[in-house]
Amino acid sequence: MYLKWCICADWSLSSLGILVNVGSHFDPARSIFVAPRKGVYSFSFHVVKVYNRQTIQVSLVLNGWPVISAFAGDQDVTREAATNAGLVMMERGDKAYLKLERGNLMGGWKYSTFSGFLVFPL
Amino acid sequence: MYLKWCICADWSLSSLGILVNVGSHFDPARSIFVAPRKGVYSFSFHVVKVYNRQTIQVSLVLNGWPVISAFAGDQDVTREAATNAGLVMMERGDKAYLKLERGNLMGGWKYSTFSGFLVFPL
Amino acid sequence: MYLKWCICADWSLSSLGILVNVGSHFDPARSIFVAPRKGVYSFSFHVVKVYNRQTIQVSLVLNGWPVISAFAGDQDVTREAATNAGLVMMERGDKAYLKLERGNLMGGWKYSTFSGFLVFPL
Repeated sequence: MYLKWCICADWSLSSLGILVNVGSHFDPARSIFVAPRKGVYSFSFHVVKVYNRQTIQVSLVLNGWPVISAFAGDQDVTREAATNAGLVMMERGDKAYLKLERGNLMGGWKYSTFSGFLVFPL
Repeated sequence: MYLKWCICADWSLSSLGILVNVGSHFDPARSIFVAPRKGVYSFSFHVVKVYNRQTIQVSLVLNGWPVISAFAGDQDVTREAATNAGLVMMERGDKAYLKLERGNLMGGWKYSTFSGFLVFPL
Repeated sequence: MYLKWCICADWSLSSLGILVNVGSHFDPARSIFVAPRKGVYSFSFHVVKVYNRQTIQVSLVLNGWPVISAFAGDQDVTREAATNAGLVMMERGDKAYLKLERGNLMGGWKYSTFSGFLVFPL
């Protein structure tokens, strides 16, 4: 049986909103997923940069190690997303979160999303 | 048992093509998903803007309310995608569709995709 | 029962790395998925173009036919992704892979990802 676990965080209203948090394995205070069991997890993120001249780099971090990165660097557009997605293997208790590795989000995380679910347990 | 339900619409040939529509819960005439049962659904969209000077904003709309937005605003590139993805909770009969909230797609929806599937029932 | 099958390839370290390859249905030497059984598969790709003046077009190719395309064409940004995602129906033995249809990746596939999993069997 598949474990019912998934989350979708979004910042549509500037502050963090949780569209879905089945199983409550996402900690909204720290924006960290904690894997409820061993398995393969799918993650997707879209971090929106509002007009500024800096390049941003965002990484999906697993237990402190960046595994997937995305970039947004255009100087002329009002809104642009650093986006990526992938599957990762996680043990029970492993932590996954987004980290802004370069640049800053002057307008906050507005319109950004971060979602994930268990593809299957192992 | 998981319900076999998913769709993937694409516009590779300028007009709407349906790569996958298992369960037939996607209405091609109106480009609307109707949820066959309560559950968590994953959606992903990539709307391609062909060269024009306008910014576009595309939203995933759930029963009339925008839940996730994406932008493409570059003036200098020939093709650029407004892309986002996320999970949403839907009741049976809930409707999900894409809405172009700002700008227009002069070249039509060519190369755009919209896909979704039931992650698990509730 | 769902088949445990998925992959996530990434090129974070310039050369191909395999984050996940459950079932070993991804051939790293040729970067090709071979479907282990009939079903609906979800694919996602993000191909990162490092600074160059060319437009790139990347397609997800199924048995030699491009089904989903993505573009990156900005001349002014250091890193930009051609990204798309979708669901496809595959028979046992069908092959899926990424193809660079236009332009070239001077910096290699660094930071690019390609992931997929079986949504459900048919």
